[in-house]
Amino acid sequence: MAGNTTFLLAELATRLGGTLAGNPDTPITQLATLQSAGDNALSFFANARYLNQLKDTKAAAVLITPALKDECPVDAILVENPYLAFARASQLFDWREDVQAGIHASAVVAEGAQIDPSAEVGPQAVVEAGAVIAAGAVIGAGSVVGRGCYIGENTRLEARVTLYPNVRIGCRSLIHSGAVIGADGFGFAPTAKGWEKICQLGGVRIGDNVEVGACTTIDRGALDDTIIEDGVKLDDQVLIAHNVVVGRYTAIAGCTAVAGSTRIGERCTIAGHAGITGHLQIADGTHVTAMSLVSRSITQPGVYSSGTGMEPHRQWKRNVVRFRQLDELARRVRKLEQATEQHSTEGPNT
Amino acid sequence: MAGNTTFLLAELATRLGGTLAGNPDTPITQLATLQSAGDNALSFFANARYLNQLKDTKAAAVLITPALKDECPVDAILVENPYLAFARASQLFDWREDVQAGIHASAVVAEGAQIDPSAEVGPQAVVEAGAVIAAGAVIGAGSVVGRGCYIGENTRLEARVTLYPNVRIGCRSLIHSGAVIGADGFGFAPTAKGWEKICQLGGVRIGDNVEVGACTTIDRGALDDTIIEDGVKLDDQVLIAHNVVVGRYTAIAGCTAVAGSTRIGERCTIAGHAGITGHLQIADGTHVTAMSLVSRSITQPGVYSSGTGMEPHRQWKRNVVRFRQLDELARRVRKLEQATEQHSTEGPNT
Amino acid sequence: MAGNTTFLLAELATRLGGTLAGNPDTPITQLATLQSAGDNALSFFANARYLNQLKDTKAAAVLITPALKDECPVDAILVENPYLAFARASQLFDWREDVQAGIHASAVVAEGAQIDPSAEVGPQAVVEAGAVIAAGAVIGAGSVVGRGCYIGENTRLEARVTLYPNVRIGCRSLIHSGAVIGADGFGFAPTAKGWEKICQLGGVRIGDNVEVGACTTIDRGALDDTIIEDGVKLDDQVLIAHNVVVGRYTAIAGCTAVAGSTRIGERCTIAGHAGITGHLQIADGTHVTAMSLVSRSITQPGVYSSGTGMEPHRQWKRNVVRFRQLDELARRVRKLEQATEQHSTEGPNT
Repeated sequence: MAGNTTFLLAELATRLGGTLAGNPDTPITQLATLQSAGDNALSFFANARYLNQLKDTKAAAVLITPALKDECPVDAILVENPYLAFARASQLFDWREDVQAGIHASAVVAEGAQIDPSAEVGPQAVVEAGAVIAAGAVIGAGSVVGRGCYIGENTRLEARVTLYPNVRIGCRSLIHSGAVIGADGFGFAPTAKGWEKICQLGGVRIGDNVEVGACTTIDRGALDDTIIEDGVKLDDQVLIAHNVVVGRYTAIAGCTAVAGSTRIGERCTIAGHAGITGHLQIADGTHVTAMSLVSRSITQPGVYSSGTGMEPHRQWKRNVVRFRQLDELARRVRKLEQATEQHSTEGPNT
Repeated sequence: MAGNTTFLLAELATRLGGTLAGNPDTPITQLATLQSAGDNALSFFANARYLNQLKDTKAAAVLITPALKDECPVDAILVENPYLAFARASQLFDWREDVQAGIHASAVVAEGAQIDPSAEVGPQAVVEAGAVIAAGAVIGAGSVVGRGCYIGENTRLEARVTLYPNVRIGCRSLIHSGAVIGADGFGFAPTAKGWEKICQLGGVRIGDNVEVGACTTIDRGALDDTIIEDGVKLDDQVLIAHNVVVGRYTAIAGCTAVAGSTRIGERCTIAGHAGITGHLQIADGTHVTAMSLVSRSITQPGVYSSGTGMEPHRQWKRNVVRFRQLDELARRVRKLEQATEQHSTEGPNT
Repeated sequence: MAGNTTFLLAELATRLGGTLAGNPDTPITQLATLQSAGDNALSFFANARYLNQLKDTKAAAVLITPALKDECPVDAILVENPYLAFARASQLFDWREDVQAGIHASAVVAEGAQIDPSAEVGPQAVVEAGAVIAAGAVIGAGSVVGRGCYIGENTRLEARVTLYPNVRIGCRSLIHSGAVIGADGFGFAPTAKGWEKICQLGGVRIGDNVEVGACTTIDRGALDDTIIEDGVKLDDQVLIAHNVVVGRYTAIAGCTAVAGSTRIGERCTIAGHAGITGHLQIADGTHVTAMSLVSRSITQPGVYSSGTGMEPHRQWKRNVVRFRQLDELARRVRKLEQATEQHSTEGPNT
């Protein structure tokens, strides 16, 4: 864990591809913000807003661009992209333990499941028949891997993840605790007496380098698969309905729901608590702001929003009443305009 | 699983109550969309929008109404309601395995729990004292069934479901992974020093043929029970608060929250990411669109909405500012109208 | 469970600090609403709206203020705050069993974990190395407690809770099933080829008397900790992102998401399905209504809202179109005003 890792500053500069400006032998034991950094901490400066914090920092060293070196009151590692260098540094200090190869005595692995000897299956986990766990993969404590699933190399399921049967995950992906992948899509045919279930016969395919947040649910397809492409990042409590396709490198923040059969393009960012209705196409490079409802396809990349802004409740209540009358208000304005036009035609000067 | 099931086309026609128009001996091994269907696939035509796909389909056969038979370029099974027939066909190809009667060696079943010999209790599951698991029911891997729960015949809990004590579920219901049923309702009395917990003494009663989605939470009642009636379908990540009643055959899509003591009628459909506040009555046959907030009771069936539509962010920002001034704008329009009225009375012609 | 507990009315009056007005020897076996209460039930009257129900109640006794005693047709316990007294009474009838000290045979406790002898570790639970479980704490069935976690005295984790490594919880807190505490915050640095993970090196600190709802997720901090202060109440499916601070006694209702680094003050109430964007400050005593988006800091306590009100869909659609034209409409009104002003200056009488 973080507290047990030490690097010399020169070693970090090399690992992060930066240029050292300072004492190569300073031991660095942790990362910290400019404000909270102490003696053996490395910090980073990536946002001009925090210039005051930079000037007062007590960090041992700071990741900073060469152009801003003179603003830095302490040692520095000079890099072109300090935020990216910080991201890479964070990986050197990660608290996750190395993979502990083997199957815990309390795990239940069905006959016919294939577990690579270098993979780890944690306590109380369940791996069903026909599942394949590739080299270096980790199945966390209490996770359940259904029949016929495939978990790629170095992919990690944290504790208490569920994969229904026929879910495929690529390499180096990370699935957080509570996530449920492959549950039935919400599909029913209406009948005179309620709903007839449409069994969801497709699966889920997840690419490489994907991250799936805690308690996120990704439903299996009705007939074809639901697809999460390489490099997609899903935050906690995201809902991906059946037959959705999420394109490469798209990031979706927490509590957002994407309804059935919608295709989201590549490199989109969808902010938190948004809703995207079903059967839409969202163009590559689209950005959706927090709590927006996307109810039509988006063909042009850009930033899209819906909703209203926060205001004091009493004032808001009056405006909400007016919103209900908005169409009528617009008609009244049109009428006034017509009256004015008429007036200026028939007016005093004619 | 789907790939291992084969029916002859004639057999499917019989099972689905349709009329065969084509080769009775064609083997059907899977269902597919019109577009992706191949040699041994059965498809369906239920939406006129896909007429072009019908004309190009490579399906072995298509479920279609008698009236449209001539549009179908391949064999057909003629049925009155192709979508419903497709739903029933999907059940013939479901990937779920038959119930494997018995209690897995790794499961923990408390003394005093009653498990029917034909029921299945999966690996790592826990069944507490006083729980009753009826014939043909399945308790999935890692699920926890609390004290005194009742699980009806042929009801299935998928992996990692939690039932708190005193939850009753009827027959043929399906509870998806991650669902939590019977957690405490959110009830506290305010005090000078924070909140005093109101212990939630009611339970949860769920009817027959109910489906509960992944990571959906249904809280126990404060005094009386929370009730989910027969045939209700809840999608993933739905929140049902304490003492809510959801009427028969109502369907609620993902991420929708229903606050305490609200009664939703029968045959309602509530779209995704909606919110329904507490202590309301929602009439039978009400439909609520995606991301709407329902903050008053609905006495007339119909379709209800709130929110604004998506638009480019820059334009939206301007409109949001205007929304905050909407009441004022309406007053200004009234004033103009008054001026105009006065003008037309006192105007140039008088 | 509720049904097995019996108190004499006099005993309840004493325990609740009230004054008995009635038969001291009436046995009370349960709590109930005024409407559903029967022979041996205690009810409460705390809301003038239910006066008719009070008059018709068949409860054995009612918790009521001295001032309203004459309205009560049955025995009473007179208290200053009947709702608070009811909350306390509910705790006397709670269905939770006493802590059953010891580690269940099926649980997996790593070497080096410290479990107080008076604590309970349920079936199929996992406690990793370095975790400390204090006196009287309960680790529910199937829960996973990560390395180095600390669980304070009398804190209870219900079934299937996940604590990632380095999560600290104080005393007398209650964590509901499905909750995931300490998963990675959603942090990535953009690169030319997607996203570089920022490992989340902070932890989570939760105070005393906190309640965390079912399937709620509280992410670990990026560098510093995410903090939930004493007496905070979080409903189901709440999302607390990395480095959020939630101040004392604040209550957040279900499905609300709070984005990264936002600080919510003390004694706030945030209603359900709300969204609070990142890096904001929310003043003590702020109230946010259901489904509101808070996208700016709030410096003055008060009630805040956003969104529009529910209306019939057809009418709403027209208003939504007008909302997209709102800025233009406001400009048109301004123009009319200018024309009118000009008119009244240049008008017929000049």
